Amino acid sequence: MRGLILFAHGARAPGWAGPLHETVERVRAAQPGLPVRLAFLEFLTPTLEEAGDALVSQGCTLVEIVPLFLGAGGHVRKDLPARTAALQQRHPGVTWQLRPAVGESPRVIEAMALAALDPPPLLP
Amino acid sequence: MRGLILFAHGARAPGWAGPLHETVERVRAAQPGLPVRLAFLEFLTPTLEEAGDALVSQGCTLVEIVPLFLGAGGHVRKDLPARTAALQQRHPGVTWQLRPAVGESPRVIEAMALAALDPPPLLP
Repeated sequence: MRGLILFAHGARAPGWAGPLHETVERVRAAQPGLPVRLAFLEFLTPTLEEAGDALVSQGCTLVEIVPLFLGAGGHVRKDLPARTAALQQRHPGVTWQLRPAVGESPRVIEAMALAALDPPPLLP
Repeated sequence: MRGLILFAHGARAPGWAGPLHETVERVRAAQPGLPVRLAFLEFLTPTLEEAGDALVSQGCTLVEIVPLFLGAGGHVRKDLPARTAALQQRHPGVTWQLRPAVGESPRVIEAMALAALDPPPLLP
């Protein structure tokens, strides 16, 4: 069974993760049977490893890690490959696959451009 | 004349800003006459103030600052309002408007969910 971890940076500000939780809800709405977890690098929980263990406990044999980052910086290029390899060693019977940062998706780039062109709403 | 600043965090990794430059190109393709600049908080240039001065020199009288951030953390909630107010004082004849983070746009949330659901490409 395939599972997804949406991995985000995390922040102290309350509400920062709101759009990321909404992203998970959209994924669940699109594929109700697909196990999907949100995980964070810092400030918020669960960690990548906690989310990974949870998906394995759910019976996932393929876990794709999707970085919710706008670009491929050090976290995506260095930390995530190392932590993905560590998960592979920890759960050798499960295939762990690191995906590109969502910000590199043409879909997301197009959506950011359209959002930037929107008529200007004022911040609350 | 309206102008846009797409303001991103910045990172050391080469290529990190590629998707953000592509976002600016999509905006330019959609509205060729609209002055738009990319600016960064750290590691990359120009700064917000340099981009703002450049748009004023181009004749912009309304500058919208669009945070290319996934959520509203400290940079978007605290730093950007203060720096937007400083730009307003520095260029009182220009209207400076801070927009919500693009990550809060339903369009971007939907695009991130679809990108997460894509069949898994391997990282290069």
